[in-house]
Amino acid sequence: MNFSSDTSAPAHPNVLAALARVNTGNEASYGGDSVTARLRGQLAELFETEDFDFWMTASGTASNALALSCFCPSIGAVLCHDAAHIAIDERGAPEFFSGGGKLQLLAGTGGKIGADTLAAALAQIDYGFVHQTPAHVLSLTNLTESGTAYSVAEVTDLAAKAHGAGLVVHLDGARFGNALVATGASPAEMSWKAGVDVLTFGLTKTGAMGCEIIMLFGKAREKWGELKARAKRSGHMPPKMRYLAAQAEAMLDGGLWLDLAGRANKAALKLAATLMAQPGVHLVTKPGGNEVFARLPEGLAETLTAAGAKFYPWPDGSHRFVCSWATQDDEISAVATAMG
Amino acid sequence: MNFSSDTSAPAHPNVLAALARVNTGNEASYGGDSVTARLRGQLAELFETEDFDFWMTASGTASNALALSCFCPSIGAVLCHDAAHIAIDERGAPEFFSGGGKLQLLAGTGGKIGADTLAAALAQIDYGFVHQTPAHVLSLTNLTESGTAYSVAEVTDLAAKAHGAGLVVHLDGARFGNALVATGASPAEMSWKAGVDVLTFGLTKTGAMGCEIIMLFGKAREKWGELKARAKRSGHMPPKMRYLAAQAEAMLDGGLWLDLAGRANKAALKLAATLMAQPGVHLVTKPGGNEVFARLPEGLAETLTAAGAKFYPWPDGSHRFVCSWATQDDEISAVATAMG
Amino acid sequence: MNFSSDTSAPAHPNVLAALARVNTGNEASYGGDSVTARLRGQLAELFETEDFDFWMTASGTASNALALSCFCPSIGAVLCHDAAHIAIDERGAPEFFSGGGKLQLLAGTGGKIGADTLAAALAQIDYGFVHQTPAHVLSLTNLTESGTAYSVAEVTDLAAKAHGAGLVVHLDGARFGNALVATGASPAEMSWKAGVDVLTFGLTKTGAMGCEIIMLFGKAREKWGELKARAKRSGHMPPKMRYLAAQAEAMLDGGLWLDLAGRANKAALKLAATLMAQPGVHLVTKPGGNEVFARLPEGLAETLTAAGAKFYPWPDGSHRFVCSWATQDDEISAVATAMG
Amino acid sequence: MNFSSDTSAPAHPNVLAALARVNTGNEASYGGDSVTARLRGQLAELFETEDFDFWMTASGTASNALALSCFCPSIGAVLCHDAAHIAIDERGAPEFFSGGGKLQLLAGTGGKIGADTLAAALAQIDYGFVHQTPAHVLSLTNLTESGTAYSVAEVTDLAAKAHGAGLVVHLDGARFGNALVATGASPAEMSWKAGVDVLTFGLTKTGAMGCEIIMLFGKAREKWGELKARAKRSGHMPPKMRYLAAQAEAMLDGGLWLDLAGRANKAALKLAATLMAQPGVHLVTKPGGNEVFARLPEGLAETLTAAGAKFYPWPDGSHRFVCSWATQDDEISAVATAMG
Repeated sequence: MNFSSDTSAPAHPNVLAALARVNTGNEASYGGDSVTARLRGQLAELFETEDFDFWMTASGTASNALALSCFCPSIGAVLCHDAAHIAIDERGAPEFFSGGGKLQLLAGTGGKIGADTLAAALAQIDYGFVHQTPAHVLSLTNLTESGTAYSVAEVTDLAAKAHGAGLVVHLDGARFGNALVATGASPAEMSWKAGVDVLTFGLTKTGAMGCEIIMLFGKAREKWGELKARAKRSGHMPPKMRYLAAQAEAMLDGGLWLDLAGRANKAALKLAATLMAQPGVHLVTKPGGNEVFARLPEGLAETLTAAGAKFYPWPDGSHRFVCSWATQDDEISAVATAMG
Repeated sequence: MNFSSDTSAPAHPNVLAALARVNTGNEASYGGDSVTARLRGQLAELFETEDFDFWMTASGTASNALALSCFCPSIGAVLCHDAAHIAIDERGAPEFFSGGGKLQLLAGTGGKIGADTLAAALAQIDYGFVHQTPAHVLSLTNLTESGTAYSVAEVTDLAAKAHGAGLVVHLDGARFGNALVATGASPAEMSWKAGVDVLTFGLTKTGAMGCEIIMLFGKAREKWGELKARAKRSGHMPPKMRYLAAQAEAMLDGGLWLDLAGRANKAALKLAATLMAQPGVHLVTKPGGNEVFARLPEGLAETLTAAGAKFYPWPDGSHRFVCSWATQDDEISAVATAMG
Repeated sequence: MNFSSDTSAPAHPNVLAALARVNTGNEASYGGDSVTARLRGQLAELFETEDFDFWMTASGTASNALALSCFCPSIGAVLCHDAAHIAIDERGAPEFFSGGGKLQLLAGTGGKIGADTLAAALAQIDYGFVHQTPAHVLSLTNLTESGTAYSVAEVTDLAAKAHGAGLVVHLDGARFGNALVATGASPAEMSWKAGVDVLTFGLTKTGAMGCEIIMLFGKAREKWGELKARAKRSGHMPPKMRYLAAQAEAMLDGGLWLDLAGRANKAALKLAATLMAQPGVHLVTKPGGNEVFARLPEGLAETLTAAGAKFYPWPDGSHRFVCSWATQDDEISAVATAMG
Repeated sequence: MNFSSDTSAPAHPNVLAALARVNTGNEASYGGDSVTARLRGQLAELFETEDFDFWMTASGTASNALALSCFCPSIGAVLCHDAAHIAIDERGAPEFFSGGGKLQLLAGTGGKIGADTLAAALAQIDYGFVHQTPAHVLSLTNLTESGTAYSVAEVTDLAAKAHGAGLVVHLDGARFGNALVATGASPAEMSWKAGVDVLTFGLTKTGAMGCEIIMLFGKAREKWGELKARAKRSGHMPPKMRYLAAQAEAMLDGGLWLDLAGRANKAALKLAATLMAQPGVHLVTKPGGNEVFARLPEGLAETLTAAGAKFYPWPDGSHRFVCSWATQDDEISAVATAMG
């Protein structure tokens, strides 16, 4: 009954097998290896384009901050939801990597930035007014921090508005697979076709050991050299890159990552149904992926914890339960049993 | 004949096996896992002390920069050799992590800072003179960038001088194992017993996939909380820390890391002897570890390259050959053959 | 009818005379001059203490950012009102000077942080939780950005709460004189006696050419050396400091600064009364100092502008009118005339 | 006998008079005032071009660091002489303003970077090699830190080399007037006509109270908006800009600044002759401006100090004597007398 986070799950065995498979002979360091080269082909096929560059890190915080720092100057700001991971959970990483840039927080229900809220914020931007710190980037998160999924249409609309005001669009896809399964969208539809310029394509929570791919699409590729320099400078150019690439290769091979995301989403739906069967339980939002946010009647959190369940209280008074590829059916049955 | 770098070698199979071994069940994220807890015991035994804290990253650049940034304020400087990795090869990582601190470069033959040079630099420090950027940290590298090894006595002397002037002492031990094998010193003797306050204990070049341990000794432990905050903020707190800890565990288990460092050092000695057998070849410095710096007679570099050997020209006009745990005897014989 | 800002006013003639008076002979550079030495005595008398250190800059943004950067580490945050000058009008200066620290914005009516809001924010601080960016400093503004004045009791209460949670208390006193005149408090009562550790004591808006004094009280004096280093490093240690000190000396001499603040406050009250005499005009807040925020009936802003009045629309839909020491009675009469 | 620095001199009376002259009525803040507008015309005439933008600060350190930070990204470096003020005397300001960029120090006799040294440094730049921190800017100083003057031909040659490698050329002209008088060059000839893209045009040491103009020429004007944003963010946009502009206006009016620089240079020549008349005194370099660097026979420094002379020992073992516009003939005679 471990629903604390999808980061507490192990890696899928295929990932480990891939590490062992590439662990032979010499390879050029710092991304010049043959595994990374092969991965490029896989990504091209997956995203249905050759018009991209990419870099890998082992950390979502790093990938987000590197991506943002290439597009938000130190004298600029990033628009994001006020519950965004980059705002709440990354200890100021965007500010650090950008050299003191700002985050401008936008409110929005269900973890989503509303179109009107965005439009109002964009309307206030005045690059010529020197006192203000104007936004240069819009950062969206899909799956959102509230467990909901933006549709392709929503991302497309927000991105178009941002582009209209001259901003670059970043998508934090730490749970990209979960969002795709939830919406039925393809990777291309949910990224560059929807107007995403730079994507943090997360595989760690989905089932890798630690692998997050920064994807630069189209015009954003101009920053490819700068991205590598910033990666080096921040310690995110580990010499033996083949082991990052091997993880990604294993996850993408045969669509494993989407299978695993699908398993996690299905487990979450089942867990949600199980919780809802208990009187007094209310879902905060309809689960869009692998997370369930539920308001529990008095005493239930304690009962579940006493029975060995792990999950976190959330700032809004609800509790968060996260399922992963490794969540077992009997963990969910055990919740039902514990609730009596 | 791949002597390009010890980072082009694969990981030792035990490291991969350890990853697979810990790849089961849920574990707390961000260093709260059982593997990291076990590793603490191993490190205590290895370094003969309980008076330490540690953090792991996958990158030597990151470990050095994190370590330095805890002790060098943005208004301060780090003393280091003018060929130090932190000065030449890390794209300004120390400056970035410290918020704009400076490196003050000291000359020195054979990759070593001379005692007199250090003393002269220390004598110039005036913390009250606001125009100057005074040094707060001395950073040594062992194995040095020239392939030589500082003795325990040398480190002790330099560290004592630095402490006398109020500085903290950092040791970049990207090739710590090679230096220990070369000098016969124990980990404790070459670190905290010699006056090292913070150590970058590298295992990647020795044979891990990617694992560098930052060790804080004694009074330096005050910075433990700050170190973790800086690690988080810079993306060096990957959620699934167990896989970093497992690498270290496998490397330390049974002294594997020192065996592997010993193999690399032995290969370098053999390669040096092989090269020296050729008329006109001169070693720049007597190899102290797993690196050979040789001046080659005209045409020899081209001959070796044509035969398939990989190695790098060095700024001083020599060529650098690096051996690793995976260097094969027949790679060295092939050099002999190629030289004719 | 120029009510655009108190920064558009000229300097008081005494300030210019003081510049001329010190403009003779050689003086030590960088704060070692005799004028700066004399000023220390004046400040001691004014603030009724010898337990302080100070530095001067020509800019309020610089003084705030320098003050904050000495107490908010790059991994920390500053609590402030969401309309604070440091948040809205300084182009990210606090983030820049602190090396990427964050501002945590607190809502509050009338430009003031409510005691409960502060208490709630303080209760969430967990220095051991590495993902969060915890606050290290509380920054208050008095006169507030809404033109109201915190009472000594309010500052004392907020400061006590902040100290109880381990924070340092900063007061942005760009309009400190206006707040003192409005509340009848003495400089000591509104600063260190109320728990303010570091004060930006502004004289520019009051009538100087450009002079803002950073005052460190009590334990905050530990940062005196760091403050000077940061001032040097950011270009806020102009060589000929005597001319900054001379401005302050002239302003403090005989209480000129409080006289000038009183004139500005009185003008604002008169202007407020004049505006209120017009049907449909409503004050947003009761003026606490030299600023008037008024909601104007449709067409009135245009009428006043057409008549030559200068003032700014405010984000909340009201208009801001600022009086200065140099505001003339006939400027206010002209407003009455223009309104018909 | 105060030869400590030209920054210990007072301002020229015309400067003070100009301050008083503009001290009337309201003026737009932050550079929108009429005095700043007039100054633009003066600068256009002086530099024989309209193809420029400018900003003013009260500090040479600030002007240099702001200028450099617009052209050197945080992942880049600035080439400068190893005795440059930006390297030695600014407490890491360039590193701070650039967000952690590096200075790459070049040796050179007489305070000048040699053409060959520069060419060698430029040849090593490889923007595609991610480990290196490549130079983006060449920063020259004229008058140099050794008191010598680069000729127009020398600046032109160095700038052409830098441009050839894609670098931007900055000139630190803290003593620009002294260099012009020494070489007979016009402002245009020594700046944009020689290939200088961005100039710190210093007037403080020449006789202002505190005024240093950043001049962007030609293509460098693209950075005008960024320069203002960086100025605001670093506290170098004081609200009452008219007082900076008035200083510059007074200094430029009728060529006062060049007259004053000429006086200082003449005094230095006279002082040099006076010192040379003493047996055992040797000049380190032939004075190019208002500074004299002399090696003194044993005991002479003490004798002069005892007689009341002020001057500084220099790191190379010599002593530095600086003359200013305010240096009096009898101060120099007093030196002769003191030497006996």
